[in-house]
Amino acid sequence: MIFRVDRLQIALDKPPKPDPDGAAAVQELLGGRFGEMSTLNNYMHQSFAFREKERLAPFYDLVASITAEEFGHVELVAHTINLLLADTAFPMHPTKGPMEANKLARNSQHFIVGGPGHLVQDSLGRPWLGDYVFCSGNLVLDLLHNFFLESGARTHKHRVYQMTTNPTARTMIGYLMIRGGVHQASYAKALEEVTGVNMTKMLPLPNIKDDEIPEAKKWMEQGSHLRLYRFSPDDFRHLEAIWHGTATWADGVELEVGEGTPEGAAAKPMAESPTRFAPQYQTEEIYEIAARLMKDMPKSERKTLKRDRERAA
Amino acid sequence: MIFRVDRLQIALDKPPKPDPDGAAAVQELLGGRFGEMSTLNNYMHQSFAFREKERLAPFYDLVASITAEEFGHVELVAHTINLLLADTAFPMHPTKGPMEANKLARNSQHFIVGGPGHLVQDSLGRPWLGDYVFCSGNLVLDLLHNFFLESGARTHKHRVYQMTTNPTARTMIGYLMIRGGVHQASYAKALEEVTGVNMTKMLPLPNIKDDEIPEAKKWMEQGSHLRLYRFSPDDFRHLEAIWHGTATWADGVELEVGEGTPEGAAAKPMAESPTRFAPQYQTEEIYEIAARLMKDMPKSERKTLKRDRERAA
Amino acid sequence: MIFRVDRLQIALDKPPKPDPDGAAAVQELLGGRFGEMSTLNNYMHQSFAFREKERLAPFYDLVASITAEEFGHVELVAHTINLLLADTAFPMHPTKGPMEANKLARNSQHFIVGGPGHLVQDSLGRPWLGDYVFCSGNLVLDLLHNFFLESGARTHKHRVYQMTTNPTARTMIGYLMIRGGVHQASYAKALEEVTGVNMTKMLPLPNIKDDEIPEAKKWMEQGSHLRLYRFSPDDFRHLEAIWHGTATWADGVELEVGEGTPEGAAAKPMAESPTRFAPQYQTEEIYEIAARLMKDMPKSERKTLKRDRERAA
Amino acid sequence: MIFRVDRLQIALDKPPKPDPDGAAAVQELLGGRFGEMSTLNNYMHQSFAFREKERLAPFYDLVASITAEEFGHVELVAHTINLLLADTAFPMHPTKGPMEANKLARNSQHFIVGGPGHLVQDSLGRPWLGDYVFCSGNLVLDLLHNFFLESGARTHKHRVYQMTTNPTARTMIGYLMIRGGVHQASYAKALEEVTGVNMTKMLPLPNIKDDEIPEAKKWMEQGSHLRLYRFSPDDFRHLEAIWHGTATWADGVELEVGEGTPEGAAAKPMAESPTRFAPQYQTEEIYEIAARLMKDMPKSERKTLKRDRERAA
Amino acid sequence: MIFRVDRLQIALDKPPKPDPDGAAAVQELLGGRFGEMSTLNNYMHQSFAFREKERLAPFYDLVASITAEEFGHVELVAHTINLLLADTAFPMHPTKGPMEANKLARNSQHFIVGGPGHLVQDSLGRPWLGDYVFCSGNLVLDLLHNFFLESGARTHKHRVYQMTTNPTARTMIGYLMIRGGVHQASYAKALEEVTGVNMTKMLPLPNIKDDEIPEAKKWMEQGSHLRLYRFSPDDFRHLEAIWHGTATWADGVELEVGEGTPEGAAAKPMAESPTRFAPQYQTEEIYEIAARLMKDMPKSERKTLKRDRERAA
Amino acid sequence: MIFRVDRLQIALDKPPKPDPDGAAAVQELLGGRFGEMSTLNNYMHQSFAFREKERLAPFYDLVASITAEEFGHVELVAHTINLLLADTAFPMHPTKGPMEANKLARNSQHFIVGGPGHLVQDSLGRPWLGDYVFCSGNLVLDLLHNFFLESGARTHKHRVYQMTTNPTARTMIGYLMIRGGVHQASYAKALEEVTGVNMTKMLPLPNIKDDEIPEAKKWMEQGSHLRLYRFSPDDFRHLEAIWHGTATWADGVELEVGEGTPEGAAAKPMAESPTRFAPQYQTEEIYEIAARLMKDMPKSERKTLKRDRERAA
Repeated sequence: MIFRVDRLQIALDKPPKPDPDGAAAVQELLGGRFGEMSTLNNYMHQSFAFREKERLAPFYDLVASITAEEFGHVELVAHTINLLLADTAFPMHPTKGPMEANKLARNSQHFIVGGPGHLVQDSLGRPWLGDYVFCSGNLVLDLLHNFFLESGARTHKHRVYQMTTNPTARTMIGYLMIRGGVHQASYAKALEEVTGVNMTKMLPLPNIKDDEIPEAKKWMEQGSHLRLYRFSPDDFRHLEAIWHGTATWADGVELEVGEGTPEGAAAKPMAESPTRFAPQYQTEEIYEIAARLMKDMPKSERKTLKRDRERAA
Repeated sequence: MIFRVDRLQIALDKPPKPDPDGAAAVQELLGGRFGEMSTLNNYMHQSFAFREKERLAPFYDLVASITAEEFGHVELVAHTINLLLADTAFPMHPTKGPMEANKLARNSQHFIVGGPGHLVQDSLGRPWLGDYVFCSGNLVLDLLHNFFLESGARTHKHRVYQMTTNPTARTMIGYLMIRGGVHQASYAKALEEVTGVNMTKMLPLPNIKDDEIPEAKKWMEQGSHLRLYRFSPDDFRHLEAIWHGTATWADGVELEVGEGTPEGAAAKPMAESPTRFAPQYQTEEIYEIAARLMKDMPKSERKTLKRDRERAA
Repeated sequence: MIFRVDRLQIALDKPPKPDPDGAAAVQELLGGRFGEMSTLNNYMHQSFAFREKERLAPFYDLVASITAEEFGHVELVAHTINLLLADTAFPMHPTKGPMEANKLARNSQHFIVGGPGHLVQDSLGRPWLGDYVFCSGNLVLDLLHNFFLESGARTHKHRVYQMTTNPTARTMIGYLMIRGGVHQASYAKALEEVTGVNMTKMLPLPNIKDDEIPEAKKWMEQGSHLRLYRFSPDDFRHLEAIWHGTATWADGVELEVGEGTPEGAAAKPMAESPTRFAPQYQTEEIYEIAARLMKDMPKSERKTLKRDRERAA
Repeated sequence: MIFRVDRLQIALDKPPKPDPDGAAAVQELLGGRFGEMSTLNNYMHQSFAFREKERLAPFYDLVASITAEEFGHVELVAHTINLLLADTAFPMHPTKGPMEANKLARNSQHFIVGGPGHLVQDSLGRPWLGDYVFCSGNLVLDLLHNFFLESGARTHKHRVYQMTTNPTARTMIGYLMIRGGVHQASYAKALEEVTGVNMTKMLPLPNIKDDEIPEAKKWMEQGSHLRLYRFSPDDFRHLEAIWHGTATWADGVELEVGEGTPEGAAAKPMAESPTRFAPQYQTEEIYEIAARLMKDMPKSERKTLKRDRERAA
Repeated sequence: MIFRVDRLQIALDKPPKPDPDGAAAVQELLGGRFGEMSTLNNYMHQSFAFREKERLAPFYDLVASITAEEFGHVELVAHTINLLLADTAFPMHPTKGPMEANKLARNSQHFIVGGPGHLVQDSLGRPWLGDYVFCSGNLVLDLLHNFFLESGARTHKHRVYQMTTNPTARTMIGYLMIRGGVHQASYAKALEEVTGVNMTKMLPLPNIKDDEIPEAKKWMEQGSHLRLYRFSPDDFRHLEAIWHGTATWADGVELEVGEGTPEGAAAKPMAESPTRFAPQYQTEEIYEIAARLMKDMPKSERKTLKRDRERAA
Repeated sequence: MIFRVDRLQIALDKPPKPDPDGAAAVQELLGGRFGEMSTLNNYMHQSFAFREKERLAPFYDLVASITAEEFGHVELVAHTINLLLADTAFPMHPTKGPMEANKLARNSQHFIVGGPGHLVQDSLGRPWLGDYVFCSGNLVLDLLHNFFLESGARTHKHRVYQMTTNPTARTMIGYLMIRGGVHQASYAKALEEVTGVNMTKMLPLPNIKDDEIPEAKKWMEQGSHLRLYRFSPDDFRHLEAIWHGTATWADGVELEVGEGTPEGAAAKPMAESPTRFAPQYQTEEIYEIAARLMKDMPKSERKTLKRDRERAA
């Protein structure tokens, strides 16, 4: 089971101008074979199928808790795509062709199907597939797969980074380079323990130092590259069994386990697209319905809400 | 972001004997177009793409919090399949053909690819697809889709129930009938609010009373059919805006919002399959490595662990 | 545009007992690459894309009118599958497992998804694909494709025939062998005209005489193998330009063009499956609603209906 | 079975200039999950699988007759795409690169595979799938699906309309908005009858009045939005059982059932593309063959043809 | 470019009786994600895309020459499937249902599509996909992928081995365990050279000694596990740069490079299936045509043929 | 089995400037339904499944030896795509966006996944599928398929030729027009022998004379259109049984069988892309490792190498 917290792992701003072709490229990091849907679902399903999870707790806890972080990665990539697609329609009457420019965009379904919005696809508009999940039940093989998967994911992040200078996309990618690097290293360390093979010597893979990328370096300076988060109130207590010692592949500083989640940031509310209900869409009417529903909520609950708002202020 | 809790929503036992063809049928509820991967990902991605989430909080909170429950549903179905596949290999030397019986099983990849274990596929062995996610950005249309999706999911649960008398499968299906029914009703109520159309009158759809199914009735007696869980420590405070009043489609009793998650149950550890590393697999060696790693964990953490175990006891 | 006539091309009876694995095999003839969905859609889309249809009328008319017959072929195969799936559920309470036997059936989605019913899939449960349509815009190439498609389709019919002795399946296959043979020959003749290559000499392909198959021979005796139907009240007047002369590949008798459609037969109404709304499904209630709706229909129309019934009697 | 009539539902003209990227976008309305291939095949296969069609005649007749109209919708969208692709090749020698501009077009298979011509794909070039057909055998669920499908289809039409100002595309879309709206309303009314839920109150969905769109308004003025066509000489006599009363969702005027088909218009013959047989393609030779074949047709038939031409004049 | 030699890598006999379900399982080793089509195409396409192949000759030669061996592996698996499918049709008249038993077989397309024969599918009948090819252009990542691919392939071979006791299937699998093991080790050694990570310590993976499997042990006794073949008359001269030293993961004996190909064996001619042309198929007529064609071949060539036969004798 | 020769069938040069959209179009000739992956795999798998190959040697030898040539065709198309993608990244620091221009390219996976490099996809980025292989076991039907496949492949080559004036692409296409034409004619001749139908009269199909295309004409002048290569040191001795006589479809000159392979040309080494390991990629370090490995190779082998180099000089 999971608890959900309505925050992003990092703050993301709307880019200065719409970038639909950038959005199309970033889809690879969401729904491609090496995208975040793949990391989320690989670890999630491996944890569901794990055998002997008590006797193999250090390994189970690793896979199970990283699953939780990956949920937030999918969330970050999806928000990035949606921010890049913001304002792609002009607020004009449908007969004027408010989305005509998007006829040339690389992913037309962002507009026709998504409204506009992200899709569960790769950069060519092909759907994410359940077949991208590898779950063999052989511990060494699954760890080797996970190390390979993170290495491919890191490669794709570097390539998309080089294809776009969009600041929102790069902010997201820089952060995920660091976090993906932590996961890559943790699977390398797990493999080292179970096989005796010095996998961390393969890092960084691809062979690019994170501190060359300003958007990644920023997080290194806060030690994010050394920290594996537990993402659980009470469980996965054996992360330290594997995640300890020094980061020989980075700067040789001490690794650490972080309780809970990163602090994160609230997602900035996204405005309604003028194209969704156009022409003369009655969203105002729906806002009023929602406002009335909130006003009429049972009392006891309203109190909690007030407290909640104060805390957020 | 999410926190993960290492518990299942309900307890599941290993069935009296292996049931690989039952496992193949149950896959439809995991990776089919109307399976739990679809409910999880539809609500997850709709919540990631939600516009005006503050002004439309009652609707956003509904979709976002149900996402969290669906994670646990995928978990339940996956565990069920793995329990049905337990002991499908005989503990004999490979040359004897310990999995020969499985050559006739309906899903051969359960054994060749899964080891044995569940896959992210439907009952015909076809992968779950990102295209099963519908996220149009039109609130009414998305709610209508969700109501339709839950109705199809409920139909498929009833049909798989009628195809298997396996007690583990039926325990899981009975619970998900109730929980899926709550989600179906909550989308019906949301549609009622936003459109004025009396959707709850369509319930139950399909037209089967839950109390006819013993494995579902059991949860009705505990009021589970009236309760929508928040699945969040602090967020999604407006569930009550929509989920209140009486369940006219059921027994007319008062609806309620539950804080946190259901209590749930620990998953029973699954034993290693003799086929995974056979022949003469050194899992013992791996267990020893894991035991040593746990013993050598940094001190501060071991204390926490001890406390943890006491609490669990 | 089309008019629809609510009759099957031939009469089909329910087989003596359910045959779910036969139904799974017959799916190849509906949704396989060489199934009737492929013949229907190839000719339909080729006719939609046809250039210079007036100057090339003999060829256009051929492709366009065969399209219409193929609609009825899909209809026949679908009905066959549904008849083979009839009575696959026992009329018992869901808790008893009325569809338990179907857990072992080759196509589990016939039951979970179809209720039971046919699907737009091949014999392995894979969906029919738009990519099966070949429409190059090169007349010779398209005719060559169509000849090849019909040859593959005929081969698959012979193989499915040899895999089942189910009388309903064989009645349908026998008829389609004859009709598919007419289409195969008509594309061969069209190729002969346009290229001068004596394609009809390749017939029969595969090299099996239709009169060896009793279910096909029956239709030869009625001359069905010599007749190309126009399937249109006023259009496609140039079928005779290609479809004339003697059937050198068969018995050397004169070819003919039939106006309209074959006489056909009414489909026998299929009874509701007890599993669809079970348990305690209120289909009776729906029947009553339908009866009331029919009774309350505007008067002028009821008269027509009466006439209609008399004619049918 | 069907009869085919060689007319389009409405007249379509060649646009002033080629529009290959518009053609790529319009493909979504042909082969996308919510395109016309989906509406055609859903109703077609549901009608083939319908149980108790006599006792449930009002519902069967609805689904079965709308099938026939959808054939003509696929035809209209296909013709539109082909008109947008007309003249995309320059009449020059192959060595000059007569299709070089199309290297940048969004759907390269329009040219390489189609010659140029439409494909059975969506706007991203992915094939239409048999899995888009939903046919559960549960009447309420199937009607709910059909209402949802038409709502999604209508949404996509509005979005493609806003992405193109091409007059041919908009002429087609405007007409299909009206006709799709009739189908959407007819399923809403059927659901109202069978469940008592006031579904028509959800219309228009999406919330856009058709008379805001000039290309749609034109058909409202002719009452097309009130008329459900029977598309059959003798069958489907119970459409009036559901399709009667006033269009509360539109202008409150009386609904009506139209016999037969709309009058329609002849498709303008499309000229041969110079790229198809280039270089030095002998289409002239083929035209001569065709002319000879028509001249040599059996006499009795030529008479009919003459009559036919007079009637058309 | 390649030369083709009409021999199998090892001799294969027809099994004592038909084994269609075994054939279905073995398909995983041909067309599954980790099957031989994947190893062939991964190395083939990586070698086509290789950059700096002169400066990186030891690595290029490895990938390029292993490609050639994999062609022969696909050949072996295909022949195995075809041998398991031999005699699955009874030599009786079609009306008797000579393939009726196959209606229950797990892969119905083996019979309907293949005639019977192998297909380019996995064990669930899903097609091999070009997406199974990984070719990133990053040498370390591609080698890591190849090591992982061979490890997965080896795992699947062990599992299929445990699912069948069919001697033909096991003969093939035993040989491919050894040869796949050589490829796995060669990629491990290449990774060792380029990264300094002691990958061979991970072997055997999965942790099963080949000499436990009699069908594999037989080839170890001939030293096959130590030998990498060049599969080229003149090229790929740097295999020894990586493939030298002792096999620390096996028995510590010296590695060696074999010139050319293994000696191999002629494939036993497979007899015509009685179902292919049935009924009354004129294969005899085709044999006569072929005999005449061979007799009438130009003289100079017949001489060569004679010599060829003597050599083979 | 095969031997591999490290040469291309013809020389290919890098085009004057990068052409990523041309590369995307050329993918159709590699991974499309009618691309070279399809010709390679159809003939390869047909030869693996061939029955009675001794009695039907003229037909078996034809299919088996053409397989070998097709390997080289896939190689040529892949090299062409890679040459068109060369230099698509600017040698600048990643933060500058060295691949930003490629964000607009039609196939973004060429860069993100391929690095850049070709993929096993068609021109829309969809993977090649094992389902493109047709292997029915009916000799006439398989030959008819192969003739149709080559005709479609030739059509697509002509269309891609007309979409690009890139000299590298056209050099490759011109050669493959000739070689594909030889294969098309050889299947036509085989069909003539086995059925008596004068298939070669259909040539050229499409109706374009090869000598109109300068890049094809060049090879005709060398007689390439008359020559079928054996591609085997000792096998496939019966090609002459079918491939003899005069090329009535071309210029009436005598057909001939070529021993071995065409002479071919060495592939020009492709330089490392600056984007692959960027930033500050240590390829130099890898080159040094490779140089050391070559220097340290066992002596006996170094001698061979020297000889090898002399021969090449």
